[in-house]
Amino acid sequence: MKRRSFIKGAALGAGIAAAGAAAPAIAQRRINWRMVTTWPRNFPGFGVGAQRLADRITQMSEGRLTVQVFSAGELVPALGTFDAVIEGSAEMSHGAAYYWQNKSRATSFFTSVPYGMTSRELAAWIRYMGGQEIWDEVYDQFGVKGFLSGDTGTQAGGWFRKELKGLSDISGLRFRTPGLGGQVWQKLGATVVNMAGGEIYAALQSGALDAAEFIGPYNDLALGFHQVCKDYYFPSFIEPGLACELVVSKDKLLALPKDLQMIVETACQAEYDQVASDFYANDPIALQTLVNQHGVRVHQFPEEILEAGAKASLEILQELREGGDALTKKTAESYVKSLNILRTRTDSVDMAFLAARQKYFNIS
Amino acid sequence: MKRRSFIKGAALGAGIAAAGAAAPAIAQRRINWRMVTTWPRNFPGFGVGAQRLADRITQMSEGRLTVQVFSAGELVPALGTFDAVIEGSAEMSHGAAYYWQNKSRATSFFTSVPYGMTSRELAAWIRYMGGQEIWDEVYDQFGVKGFLSGDTGTQAGGWFRKELKGLSDISGLRFRTPGLGGQVWQKLGATVVNMAGGEIYAALQSGALDAAEFIGPYNDLALGFHQVCKDYYFPSFIEPGLACELVVSKDKLLALPKDLQMIVETACQAEYDQVASDFYANDPIALQTLVNQHGVRVHQFPEEILEAGAKASLEILQELREGGDALTKKTAESYVKSLNILRTRTDSVDMAFLAARQKYFNIS
Repeated sequence: MKRRSFIKGAALGAGIAAAGAAAPAIAQRRINWRMVTTWPRNFPGFGVGAQRLADRITQMSEGRLTVQVFSAGELVPALGTFDAVIEGSAEMSHGAAYYWQNKSRATSFFTSVPYGMTSRELAAWIRYMGGQEIWDEVYDQFGVKGFLSGDTGTQAGGWFRKELKGLSDISGLRFRTPGLGGQVWQKLGATVVNMAGGEIYAALQSGALDAAEFIGPYNDLALGFHQVCKDYYFPSFIEPGLACELVVSKDKLLALPKDLQMIVETACQAEYDQVASDFYANDPIALQTLVNQHGVRVHQFPEEILEAGAKASLEILQELREGGDALTKKTAESYVKSLNILRTRTDSVDMAFLAARQKYFNIS
Repeated sequence: MKRRSFIKGAALGAGIAAAGAAAPAIAQRRINWRMVTTWPRNFPGFGVGAQRLADRITQMSEGRLTVQVFSAGELVPALGTFDAVIEGSAEMSHGAAYYWQNKSRATSFFTSVPYGMTSRELAAWIRYMGGQEIWDEVYDQFGVKGFLSGDTGTQAGGWFRKELKGLSDISGLRFRTPGLGGQVWQKLGATVVNMAGGEIYAALQSGALDAAEFIGPYNDLALGFHQVCKDYYFPSFIEPGLACELVVSKDKLLALPKDLQMIVETACQAEYDQVASDFYANDPIALQTLVNQHGVRVHQFPEEILEAGAKASLEILQELREGGDALTKKTAESYVKSLNILRTRTDSVDMAFLAARQKYFNIS
C-alpha cells in the first residue's frame, strides 16, 4: 500500500506531461449506465453475478463507465428489462435470453435447450462455431447486443410431493416448469403451471402444485422447498445448462471508446466462468445441507422418464427447426450441427473420464 | 464509427474540465510489461491464448499497461519464465504451474492431478473453496501471484504404435508422458521418457518411443503424430483437465492502480473460459479430420488399465499428502476435500445428464 501511494504521488507531479491527447481526454468522460435485471437483489448466482459484473466494469474503467444495478421491479418489471434497453430507459439488461421468446423463438438457443448443450458446449458454440454471429443477427433486429454472462450448469430436475416410480406417475401432475422444458413435461403428461419463483413455496404447501423445478440446490435451499417436499430428482434433462446474458444497447455500446467496449465484453466472459464456479461449488454444499440437515431424499429420474423426455425434447427441437421463422431455423441448424460435433468429445472424453473416476477412484 | 468520432470530438472540448485529479493522472502513465511464455509462438490453445491475454490487457487499459509477449526461447528459455519474473527480467510468465515442481510440489494441484479435478471443478475450488488463497500462500514464497488463464479440458490418453489390449501390453513400453502422469504410467509398468513436444514425432517414427501423449487432437494434429501412429486412446485419466497460469510479480502487481489490477485479473478469468472454449470446439473438429482423412483409429482404454491407473494415481496423491512439505500437505488436503464435495454434483448431475443424452437423444 505504501508503495502504491508513493507511485500515485509521483504520478501526480509527472502525470499531465506524460498524457496523450485525445485518448486520455475521452477516457476521463464519466458515463453512468443503468443495468436493469430480471433478478431479485442478492439472488444467489445470477443476481449476485449481475452486481459483480457491474462492479467489475466500474472498477476496470476506474468509474469512467459507472454501472448502477436495479433489481427486478426497481426501475422496470423483471420481464420489462429487454424493452427498457430497446426504449432507452436503461443501457443494460441482465437476464436470460429465453425470456424474450415472444420476440424471437431463436432466443432459447442462447439460454437452454432440453437435452441440448452443457455450459462448456454452449460457450464453444458461441465463441468458436458461429453462435455469437447468429445471436448478433437475432438481436440486431432489436438494436441490442447480447453477451453470455453466467451459467448454472446442469440443473436439478425438480421437487416432487410424491415419489416418481415411472412415466405413469406424471399424468396430470401439476408441475411448475417454464419455457421449452415446460413443453417437454407437457408432452410427458404433466399439467404445466407457470409462476414466479417466489410463489412456488406456497403453492407446493397448499397442494396447488404437485411438483416444481426452479434451479438447483443452491437457490432451492434458499427458497425452502425442502420444508414442503422431500423428494428431489436429478438431473434436469430439460436444462443441461442455463446461461444468463447481458444485453446492451448496440448504438450506445459502439459509441463507447474501444477500451470500454473491451472491458464490457471481457467482464461478461469472466462472469460466465465466475457464475458457473459459484454454482459448481455451492450446489453440492447446499445439497449436503438438504440431505444431512433436512432429510431430503435424492433420486435419479427413472430411465423411462429420461427416455420419454428425450423423445419429447427431440420433437420440440424439430418443431423449432421446421416451424420457426428463417432466423430461428438458421439458429437451430447451427446449434444442432455444433452440438453433434461437440458431443463426440464430451461423450468419448469427458464422460468416459468421469465414469472411470466414479468407478475406480475413491479417496477420503 | 461516425458517432464515435463525434463523441471523441465533443470530449476533446469538455474533457479536462470533467476529469478528476489524482486518478486520471496516474491513469495516464504508460507502463510496458514483458510476458515471457513457455509456448512456441502461435501454439494452438495456450500460445494463442497468451497473446490474446496480453492484447486484452493492453486494449482494456488503452495501452496504459502495454504487454509484449515473448515466446519460449525469445527472451528466456521455456522453463526459465518463472525465474525471470522472480528475478525481474520479465513482469509476467504464461505457462503451467506444474513446471515449477522443483520449487514446490504443491504446484501440480494448480495445473492437473491424475484422476483429479476437471476444469470446472478446478475453477470452483480456486474461486470458491479456498484454492486461490492456498495458491497465493504457495507463490508468496517466491514473491509472485498466479491466476488461472486457460484449460485444455480432459485430454487425449495418447498415441500408441501398437494396439493396447490390456495391462500386460504396457510393460516396458517407452512412453513419453511428463509430470505426475508419468509417475502413474511408470507404476503401470511403462518406461517413462520425457522430451519436448517438438521431439516426439521423430522419436515415434524412429521407434525410440512406443507411445506418446501430448495434449489432444487440436495440438496433436498440428504435430503430425497420426503420420507415424494410428491408434489413439481416450480419455487421459492422468490429465482430466490441465490449467495454464499467468504469473505476475506480486510487488509490481500491487503497485499498479486498482483498475489495472482488476483488468489483469479479469482478463485472465475471461481467458480461462476462452481457451477452454477453443479446445472444446477445436478438439472434436481435429479428431474428425484425424479419423476421416488420416485413418486414425480411436479407442477407449481397456477397463483394467483405467482401474490400475486409478490405483496408481491414488498412491501418488497419497504420497504428496503424506510425504510433502507442510504447504504441499495443506494444498493436497484442501484439494481432496473439495474434490469430494464437487464430484457429488459432477457424478449425480452432469454425468447422469450426459449418460442420458448419449443413450436417448439423437438428432441429425
